Amino acid sequence: MNESCIFCKIIRGEIPSTRVYEDEHTLAFLDIGPLVKGHTLVIPKQHFDSLRDADPEAAAQVMVTAQKIARAQLNGLGADGVNIHQANGRVAGQVVPHLHVHVVPRFKDDGYHWNWKAGKYAGADESNGMAEKIRQGLKQTA
Amino acid sequence: MNESCIFCKIIRGEIPSTRVYEDEHTLAFLDIGPLVKGHTLVIPKQHFDSLRDADPEAAAQVMVTAQKIARAQLNGLGADGVNIHQANGRVAGQVVPHLHVHVVPRFKDDGYHWNWKAGKYAGADESNGMAEKIRQGLKQTA
Repeated sequence: MNESCIFCKIIRGEIPSTRVYEDEHTLAFLDIGPLVKGHTLVIPKQHFDSLRDADPEAAAQVMVTAQKIARAQLNGLGADGVNIHQANGRVAGQVVPHLHVHVVPRFKDDGYHWNWKAGKYAGADESNGMAEKIRQGLKQTA
Repeated sequence: MNESCIFCKIIRGEIPSTRVYEDEHTLAFLDIGPLVKGHTLVIPKQHFDSLRDADPEAAAQVMVTAQKIARAQLNGLGADGVNIHQANGRVAGQVVPHLHVHVVPRFKDDGYHWNWKAGKYAGADESNGMAEKIRQGLKQTA
């Protein structure tokens, strides 16, 4: 728990929220600024700023709850699909520094479009070089 | 395993990929059309079309590997942040029907911008109504 964190305040009930689901480790509630109506946030009850510092177990619990919510949006809202988004760091669009996963129900003609501009690598040397740096990063964090 | 699935073929080594990480349950490899260079896909080795039909355990394993990759991008690529995206259903932008999580390293001035248009609810009646439908959906899928 973090005294000043807005999501910790929601967990403690100090700030109101529209709760959808709760279990021992996670809480799910509506995002007040939905990308599509029904857009739900899933958070761990334990405070972690982001995936960077989260216990892997908490990351797993959040994903299992996000899957429950995705299925419930498909069945309960009649959604045609679901997007999951998660941001770590301000540069990635993270606003509240408490690990959270966005679960967004999708409908035909919901008017929501990603800006998905796929790039490409100059060649195998460039892609192999990126992969090698990530593999080195894995060793540093293992 | 699914005979015709492109990601199952990557797992079996029938289609080449630039592998970044592999364990008993998951595989991580570079997306050939990166949103930002270093963009990595994490998939379960068992075939599931999407989160809709995935074992919760597989969803959790994929998230734990996605976290490893995110940390490795921060450390190995010197990324300033990381986005995680996951799509279920064509309407959500899913192209390959094998559950996969996008792990996208973010850098200041990487030129990548989401189209994040937050909406709002007409009032508490509307938001409570959406939450109730999702709660009903949770009962159906429990």
